[in-house]
Amino acid sequence: MSDKNIFETDIRIRYAETDQMGVTYYGSYLVWYEVARTEYFRSCGLDYTQMEANGQFLAVVNSHCNYLAPTRYDDLITVKTWVSSLGKTSMEFAYEVVLKDTETKVADGSTAHVFVDKSMKPIRIPEEIHQAFSK
Amino acid sequence: MSDKNIFETDIRIRYAETDQMGVTYYGSYLVWYEVARTEYFRSCGLDYTQMEANGQFLAVVNSHCNYLAPTRYDDLITVKTWVSSLGKTSMEFAYEVVLKDTETKVADGSTAHVFVDKSMKPIRIPEEIHQAFSK
Amino acid sequence: MSDKNIFETDIRIRYAETDQMGVTYYGSYLVWYEVARTEYFRSCGLDYTQMEANGQFLAVVNSHCNYLAPTRYDDLITVKTWVSSLGKTSMEFAYEVVLKDTETKVADGSTAHVFVDKSMKPIRIPEEIHQAFSK
Amino acid sequence: MSDKNIFETDIRIRYAETDQMGVTYYGSYLVWYEVARTEYFRSCGLDYTQMEANGQFLAVVNSHCNYLAPTRYDDLITVKTWVSSLGKTSMEFAYEVVLKDTETKVADGSTAHVFVDKSMKPIRIPEEIHQAFSK
Repeated sequence: MSDKNIFETDIRIRYAETDQMGVTYYGSYLVWYEVARTEYFRSCGLDYTQMEANGQFLAVVNSHCNYLAPTRYDDLITVKTWVSSLGKTSMEFAYEVVLKDTETKVADGSTAHVFVDKSMKPIRIPEEIHQAFSK
Repeated sequence: MSDKNIFETDIRIRYAETDQMGVTYYGSYLVWYEVARTEYFRSCGLDYTQMEANGQFLAVVNSHCNYLAPTRYDDLITVKTWVSSLGKTSMEFAYEVVLKDTETKVADGSTAHVFVDKSMKPIRIPEEIHQAFSK
Repeated sequence: MSDKNIFETDIRIRYAETDQMGVTYYGSYLVWYEVARTEYFRSCGLDYTQMEANGQFLAVVNSHCNYLAPTRYDDLITVKTWVSSLGKTSMEFAYEVVLKDTETKVADGSTAHVFVDKSMKPIRIPEEIHQAFSK
Repeated sequence: MSDKNIFETDIRIRYAETDQMGVTYYGSYLVWYEVARTEYFRSCGLDYTQMEANGQFLAVVNSHCNYLAPTRYDDLITVKTWVSSLGKTSMEFAYEVVLKDTETKVADGSTAHVFVDKSMKPIRIPEEIHQAFSK
């Protein structure tokens, strides 16, 4: 991932995110990816709340996740995020999750998105997104 | 609870609702109470989706829950719900959760609500609510 | 999907499963897939709770989801599930989500699994699984 | 709250924690209270993961929450936590949630707990808990 613009977010795994197998529930990873996107936007000077107020919503088209090793309550993880594709109407984020202490990779994945208006109709990706993520 | 109008909803406990203690996560009960409210409304001929479309939202003021015995993945529970208070601007629901098979009571609780408009300002409880729940 | 053994589960979308975009949160679909797996097991005469009590856990290796159209609070959906792959140590489920009323397809996806013991070490898929899903 | 030992935890509200009303789902507050307890334990030198490994589990007996003002996606909140009661077999935490920027109080609540062993039987509160929280 040498020449990509990779953003890192640390997340402490919550008790609520575990299940009776004693490990993290598999749906929790999509929540962490969403947290990572929010922080990535913020780090690029983008305000996603303001974008929604302007009628620009980042809808999800697909999600993928590979679970490589279990994670557990109170683990401190780092979600590494980057833009793996950026078109006129769609964009894709890629993710890697590692245990912060050991850098052990425990998961990776991706999410593809289109921008939509309030009525869920696709719109062109806002120019500020292109400027922020093309650097 | 002999003379109250009690509504019953059956819910199968999901794996996602458990935690690493091997029992149901304590926040899940509030989700079940919400499911019970939705079904109670439907059983009274009320359409909560339509009410929101009309700008009437049922905001939560407080919640209480007593956890009497643990519940587990795949347990089939019955949530018994009734209106314990109905005023001009506020209303309260009470709940009892039992295991469907044995009628063992495992939790009870309550939620208090006010109706609000889109800007979260309190409004009078819609007349259809009074008619539906005063029976 | 003509010659596959397809199992159908109906699910009513919960308020808790929505987000501020006014539609269902994208992580909720993985929860529904898990509910569908549980019901599929039950329909095949398998008791997943008993399997875990026997030290057999169905760990998730990967998940995929395509979001084709938004779903909303109180929508009644049908999750169609089938075993798309069944090996000695791994198995895969495929899913289609449709609106029950119109049969409109709103999502599809898959999850791959391995069976593991309590220490999360892979084990052979239990014989009863092969018997149940090979029919 | 002048002479109490109050612990503060900052939490950024997640998109997953919102609902279609455009505000935070009411069950999310119980998750935040749990996050606050974990961090409070850590700040007192207690390791809750180790306590569970030792067969000591903090089961919830009841929960209460007052929702004073709505909170929203991306709000940065502070959860203030303190031990409001500490007995031989039970303990209670109290919580206040404020918007970090303005110190506006948006919620308060409490949770009561008993310590239990792996079979969910009550045990005396571990001595290290008394030492940590009696300061």
